[in-house]
Amino acid sequence: MAKAPILTPQAEDFPRWYQDAVAKAELADNGPVRGTMVIRPYGWAIWERMQAEVDERIKATGTQNAYFPVLIPESYIEREKAHVEGFSHEFWTVTHGGGKELEEPVVVRPTSETVFGIYMAKWVQSYRDLPLLLNQWANVMRWELRPRLFLRTSEFLWQEGHTAHATEADAAAFAARVLHDVYEDFMVDVLAIPVLTGRKTSRERFPGATNTMTLEAMMRDGKALQMGTSHELGRNFAEAFDIRYLDDNGDQQLCWTTSWGVSTRMVGGLIMTHGDDRGLRLPPRVAPVQVVVLVVRDEQGAGERARLIVEELRAAGVRAELDARVDTSFGRRAVDWELKGVPVRLEVGPRDLANMSLTLVRRDHEGKDTIPLDGVGSRVADLLDDIQASLLHEARLRRDGGTAEVTSLDDAVEAARTGFARIPWSAVGDEGEDRLAEHGVTVRCLQRADGGLPAADDEPDLVAVVARAY
Amino acid sequence: MAKAPILTPQAEDFPRWYQDAVAKAELADNGPVRGTMVIRPYGWAIWERMQAEVDERIKATGTQNAYFPVLIPESYIEREKAHVEGFSHEFWTVTHGGGKELEEPVVVRPTSETVFGIYMAKWVQSYRDLPLLLNQWANVMRWELRPRLFLRTSEFLWQEGHTAHATEADAAAFAARVLHDVYEDFMVDVLAIPVLTGRKTSRERFPGATNTMTLEAMMRDGKALQMGTSHELGRNFAEAFDIRYLDDNGDQQLCWTTSWGVSTRMVGGLIMTHGDDRGLRLPPRVAPVQVVVLVVRDEQGAGERARLIVEELRAAGVRAELDARVDTSFGRRAVDWELKGVPVRLEVGPRDLANMSLTLVRRDHEGKDTIPLDGVGSRVADLLDDIQASLLHEARLRRDGGTAEVTSLDDAVEAARTGFARIPWSAVGDEGEDRLAEHGVTVRCLQRADGGLPAADDEPDLVAVVARAY
Repeated sequence: MAKAPILTPQAEDFPRWYQDAVAKAELADNGPVRGTMVIRPYGWAIWERMQAEVDERIKATGTQNAYFPVLIPESYIEREKAHVEGFSHEFWTVTHGGGKELEEPVVVRPTSETVFGIYMAKWVQSYRDLPLLLNQWANVMRWELRPRLFLRTSEFLWQEGHTAHATEADAAAFAARVLHDVYEDFMVDVLAIPVLTGRKTSRERFPGATNTMTLEAMMRDGKALQMGTSHELGRNFAEAFDIRYLDDNGDQQLCWTTSWGVSTRMVGGLIMTHGDDRGLRLPPRVAPVQVVVLVVRDEQGAGERARLIVEELRAAGVRAELDARVDTSFGRRAVDWELKGVPVRLEVGPRDLANMSLTLVRRDHEGKDTIPLDGVGSRVADLLDDIQASLLHEARLRRDGGTAEVTSLDDAVEAARTGFARIPWSAVGDEGEDRLAEHGVTVRCLQRADGGLPAADDEPDLVAVVARAY
Repeated sequence: MAKAPILTPQAEDFPRWYQDAVAKAELADNGPVRGTMVIRPYGWAIWERMQAEVDERIKATGTQNAYFPVLIPESYIEREKAHVEGFSHEFWTVTHGGGKELEEPVVVRPTSETVFGIYMAKWVQSYRDLPLLLNQWANVMRWELRPRLFLRTSEFLWQEGHTAHATEADAAAFAARVLHDVYEDFMVDVLAIPVLTGRKTSRERFPGATNTMTLEAMMRDGKALQMGTSHELGRNFAEAFDIRYLDDNGDQQLCWTTSWGVSTRMVGGLIMTHGDDRGLRLPPRVAPVQVVVLVVRDEQGAGERARLIVEELRAAGVRAELDARVDTSFGRRAVDWELKGVPVRLEVGPRDLANMSLTLVRRDHEGKDTIPLDGVGSRVADLLDDIQASLLHEARLRRDGGTAEVTSLDDAVEAARTGFARIPWSAVGDEGEDRLAEHGVTVRCLQRADGGLPAADDEPDLVAVVARAY
């Protein structure tokens, strides 16, 4: 008789699989206040690696980190009309401080365009102060009706970039640069998640933006996840907050601003892109533990040998961890490391040592290999590169295989039951978006035929990528 | 006629000097909501370096990072009586979410013992799960009557460690280890701030703690700043939140917990320990920019030479920055870098180049040196070590010189007008603390005669360090 699976199989109930995987890998727990989340150490370690990689790329654009207050007066948010309309129903509102009612209610930031706007207006004087490139790592809060760990939580963690530029072209180029050089590069290269980049339709735009660009990934159930966005805000916020500069003719000009962000939601995307029925499968570049060295039984020096292997791996730049908890059954420990998605497991037992070898198990493949003890450091480092590439390749094949080229809305809806559909934008339009919405399907993004970013919604020959989405 | 000073001189008005220094070095601004703060890029860069150094030391203790929600139900905080009494008048309270009144008001965390407690109770089952060592980097909020940038803000950023242990001895040892190996080591070694470590008197204890240990530093005006604290919480929170474990006899036992934190307040301490009338003076280990290379005039290849020097410095592991803004006057730029406290300034001009030399200015000394171009990388790296040591030495001399040994409360009050006083604890006691308080003086900590940590308030021969404090 087969053992009961540890996780609900994906094919049986994908949302329940996700919930099980998050719980069993000890990534996160529900918080006490509606929709909030406790990120446990293993989940945090993944986020910490994501932060480091994204932060490095952000800094490479010349952007500087800063920190703005978590509480924003409601009156600030009301200054930009579309913005407040988009966010007011999601506010968490502080009405009391120090035991007294506040003179004006303040909200926990749902996003910080408004408060950055106030200070940009103060700091920008002349064209020499531009571009002003700022970013912050912060928590934000939005009311959520159907919270789900990492994917949709009332409090989430993110970075939000806010920049001001002298010209529309410079703002547009910068927003696109972040999309590609920061986000796409990170997602593809580190998370091994193939993403589509494109332009949102006007109804899917960020409230207050003139253009929202997005990165969309296909999850294993065929649904789309918006992994990040980069917005051109035109002069909307510059007008609302009076962000002006003196140009080189001595004339006052309004700035052009952008904003862009990625969040802890990416952890959910990572799980749902690579995870299988045995749990997470982490790409080595984002894995907090890349290799676990398991002592099968501490006999004939296996424990000591395992410690030496961990040292050798660390010296080779590998994030390796020792598991010498021989009082817990080997099977139980092996299953735990599989749930956590550690890319490589090395098993060290007395039998292997007698042969001067050890057992290697790749998380991304079936089966075990026996490898010689000698040169394990460099062998494993190479293997990690293989696994990184292989996970990306697999995800790309699944995404491409799950994407249908269609020409009618009916076919698009049908295709979106299991994956993505690509359909001429001319066959959709505003009315088509209404019809798709009736089936829970949305336009994820508009692309040029070659996958490039459109300069406008009404460019000829655009393709709409449609799907159900998280 | 002498030029008007850029900053209010310290001797004239120290608080105003501090305010000027923070503004002119572009560290922070007041936020829109009462007592909140905008941390500007240069201030953030200092905090980011502090975080990296503290985080590394925290991880070396085996502690893991996690993240808990920013909102905590009031009912949680009410579970520990002393705790709620200590914090309830400082709450910022959220009453509405998604446009509706919440069923129960929730507070923006003033500290997170309570919510960590709930989850520790869930995660700890047996003695094998102990010690449980957790930390988070987070924002917290406390109502402040007299806010001051970095030193006392209603929102501040910090790390808060929360640990659970099987025995009182283990908890006590861990709290002391954090005090010394994480905090003291960081403050002395990186911030170049000599700190006194000691035990708080019962009235100065953290609400809910059985023992609060503190790190106290002397600012340049002779006042004390509490730079960080580490608390033994006894079984108070374990009882309130039912944090229990099964011992190896199979009996249920209550855990012993600790908590400990340092915050953005340390940025204020850094400024007030080392800063002078020309602005900040940053110890090289915490300086975001260790060396600025200034192009005096871009003639005869000075600009190109300066770029090469920056490259050479970076290759030698020095955080170097180029200032080639020759359209701004040299004097103005030099003053700006002094305000920002950059440890070393290298000036590259055509005249220096003709002699194959450049001009070196140490921020911690008066005067200029001419040094040869050759080998500038290794010379400057050595110099940075010198400056680091010299700033610590200087601060230690000032602290020691500003500390009086006294035996009466009157003398203690007198000494506290300009610095610290050391007085036998037997000459103070609870009543003495009342009398000191009438003069705005508090017992900063209790120490053994040799500077060691007392095990209790009533140990014989303790010394009380008293001072006015921020």
